[in-house]
Amino acid sequence: MRVLVPFGARDPKRRLAPVLDADERRAFADAMLADVLDALADHDPVVLADASVEADAPVVVDERPLGEAVNAELAASAPTAVVMADLPLLTRRAVERLFAPDADVTLAPGLGGGTNALVARDPDFRTDYHGASVRDHRRAARALGASVATVDSFRLAVDADEPSDLAEVLLHGEGAAADWLRDHGGRVETTDGRVRFAREEPATGT
Amino acid sequence: MRVLVPFGARDPKRRLAPVLDADERRAFADAMLADVLDALADHDPVVLADASVEADAPVVVDERPLGEAVNAELAASAPTAVVMADLPLLTRRAVERLFAPDADVTLAPGLGGGTNALVARDPDFRTDYHGASVRDHRRAARALGASVATVDSFRLAVDADEPSDLAEVLLHGEGAAADWLRDHGGRVETTDGRVRFAREEPATGT
Repeated sequence: MRVLVPFGARDPKRRLAPVLDADERRAFADAMLADVLDALADHDPVVLADASVEADAPVVVDERPLGEAVNAELAASAPTAVVMADLPLLTRRAVERLFAPDADVTLAPGLGGGTNALVARDPDFRTDYHGASVRDHRRAARALGASVATVDSFRLAVDADEPSDLAEVLLHGEGAAADWLRDHGGRVETTDGRVRFAREEPATGT
Repeated sequence: MRVLVPFGARDPKRRLAPVLDADERRAFADAMLADVLDALADHDPVVLADASVEADAPVVVDERPLGEAVNAELAASAPTAVVMADLPLLTRRAVERLFAPDADVTLAPGLGGGTNALVARDPDFRTDYHGASVRDHRRAARALGASVATVDSFRLAVDADEPSDLAEVLLHGEGAAADWLRDHGGRVETTDGRVRFAREEPATGT
């Protein structure tokens, strides 16, 4: 099976701007990519990027919008898996659960309606990552008459898009992204409700 | 195994106040409780409530703070499972995954550091639901020398505490809570990022 990891290399993770500056966002995105490639290591992943990037896997650069590039790959070969590059809690075990179902289309929902990973065995399936994509992908698969399986995984559901996600990384992550956050002052702040992500003030030079 | 569903019957779900009024919050909490009891139906759940409540299961009323009441139950019998009442995506299949591990303590993390469900086979394990409870429960189990298993489930991780969670219920729920939201004007609003929960304006009377 072809296993693609789309990676937006141009100004990644903009919604983390309240807590990470542009260079930090890029470094954190690279750490997450490393974690995802590590979790996929038994499956020969290929990074599909919109600009050149260094990674511990083959990189295909396609300058089209990533959704278009992904659909060109789906048209070219089935089965194909698409696993997002910003899943810092991903483990080999969660990957095995993604690949286990025999369905024509397997979907792993992300928080807030996204599709964090999928496996398309139906050669006619195409993606559209805008809006509530997991709902749209379910409908698109059914419209093809394709069978659909859904993977019930927290580790696949948490993508690091918003500052609150970084608290999840600190609580549950064991890879490069969690290490990066810890090395850069990230910490979990408790509240009356859910925990929050916070950063230690950097030490001022003497 | 004793299976407890703690239910705070006094002014439940306060953090949903931006989108549901007090009566609606109570009705929605009841709908979620019904969903959780349905998912647990094969396991004879008991509702542990801080005030009287109608439910399709035996109800034990304990007026102490719920955490204290839960710990009294853990002291009284092992194994005991504790499953939160506000898990509107819970399914029988997710429940089976919670009960499958043979560990002394099984934990199902909730979003934002919570512990949405646990199974304590070690009679000395006690809960503390404040702060980042999943981290604290992990440490407490290890301090007892107890083995710990973690259930990787999105359906167990999503508790309906904040308005954004209601979007998850609409996207992935199939039970009474999702129906209640749909019947009360709940809808998913797409954005550039994650979807949002919104309500239709109620029709004005003629």
